[in-house]
Amino acid sequence: MAVTGHVSLVGAGPGDPGLLTRRAIVRLRRAELVLYDALVDERVLRYARRAQRFYVGKRAGRHAMSQDAINALMIRAARRGRRVVRLKGGDPFVFGRGGEEALALRRAGVPYDVVPGISSAIAAPAAAGIPVTHRGLATAFLVVSGHDERAFAAATKGIAANQLTIVVLMGMGRASAIAWSLVNAGWARGTPVAVVSDASTPRQQVWRGTLDELGAGIPAAQAGSAGTIVIGDVVNVNMQATLDRVVAYGS
Amino acid sequence: MAVTGHVSLVGAGPGDPGLLTRRAIVRLRRAELVLYDALVDERVLRYARRAQRFYVGKRAGRHAMSQDAINALMIRAARRGRRVVRLKGGDPFVFGRGGEEALALRRAGVPYDVVPGISSAIAAPAAAGIPVTHRGLATAFLVVSGHDERAFAAATKGIAANQLTIVVLMGMGRASAIAWSLVNAGWARGTPVAVVSDASTPRQQVWRGTLDELGAGIPAAQAGSAGTIVIGDVVNVNMQATLDRVVAYGS
Repeated sequence: MAVTGHVSLVGAGPGDPGLLTRRAIVRLRRAELVLYDALVDERVLRYARRAQRFYVGKRAGRHAMSQDAINALMIRAARRGRRVVRLKGGDPFVFGRGGEEALALRRAGVPYDVVPGISSAIAAPAAAGIPVTHRGLATAFLVVSGHDERAFAAATKGIAANQLTIVVLMGMGRASAIAWSLVNAGWARGTPVAVVSDASTPRQQVWRGTLDELGAGIPAAQAGSAGTIVIGDVVNVNMQATLDRVVAYGS
Repeated sequence: MAVTGHVSLVGAGPGDPGLLTRRAIVRLRRAELVLYDALVDERVLRYARRAQRFYVGKRAGRHAMSQDAINALMIRAARRGRRVVRLKGGDPFVFGRGGEEALALRRAGVPYDVVPGISSAIAAPAAAGIPVTHRGLATAFLVVSGHDERAFAAATKGIAANQLTIVVLMGMGRASAIAWSLVNAGWARGTPVAVVSDASTPRQQVWRGTLDELGAGIPAAQAGSAGTIVIGDVVNVNMQATLDRVVAYGS
């Protein structure tokens, strides 16, 4: 039986609907079924006017629905001829398990495509006025999941301390341990750190401090939020936009 | 004198106009002057219908115009009340010198904003069916400029070999040296490598091989193109989209 439906794995970006791609908007408008994660902003979901919307859970491993169940749901809907959007915060391939979903669709013979999204790894620092690279300060950046202690240690072990920018996603719950892990690996206690929560949304908050201070934990106002931790000298580049873009000339 | 114009530092994404953000499109449509780089696709420039367009040169340090001259041009135009877009391939803060331009605008008191773009660091691998992270294969990725030998060595020195994905931008001219540098640092000669040139454009080409083979140089068909080098086990994840998205249901 030929499959007439299809699935788009779509990156929703960091939250601000102005940061959706043109293709993501097209996919959402035409969707009949949208399966979305916890990190997806309500304003983004509004583009999917015709679609049945289905919440399938958080990232960082705590899914409301198991990955197998999500895969099965996508495949079944596509086989029934439906246009499905699997909508993920940020980019589908940056800790989004998009690769696993794409493989499942491919194995099932379901037509699919992938629509990249603006990753919080780059856009959350930018929203706080921090460039992940900057001449003379960082010619490289490492994007790492903070969720798993051993994986974090394996990825950061041996990196020459204070030579590049580290961006930690899914690390809010382990911020203190992450800070001490880097200090133990030789990073200066005074290394600048920023914690950007709810980036690019009206709830955005930015905390700035040092590795030492991060070791004492995420500030209470931000604890529990989705956030991005930026570590390195680029944090001291202060170039917060001087233009309030939304008020000044449209989103 | 109050400045009535403004500057938007806009990321143009990897090339495909469907990957422009909604905000980038708004900025281009309203722009009166667009200053663009070599990596910006002609189809993206077409959105700037009303604007005077000005080519200011390549990335990787080889500017048709010096950085100071670009800064001076943006500032002068904004002071004359013009809506300026500084359009950069990919994202403005990923090796785009966007940070330097933002600082220059801030010092000059010119209102500006930053519109992130889809970075080739993530989207070029994705366009070749490669996720930069994948459970069990890579829980981190390093994005590094290949342009400068010493900077590349400093950023990659000490990284535990074969523990994460390395994405090299601006490395096409030094591909062979990059491969040997990693082999000398302990990376397996058989580590999978992909070279994605002109990602997300009709001219896209993908070469797959190993570090050893990359050591012999970039394939002739791709040499001289703008390209992204992806190194690590994720290259073996084969999930090229099965849907020709443009033909099938619009961009």
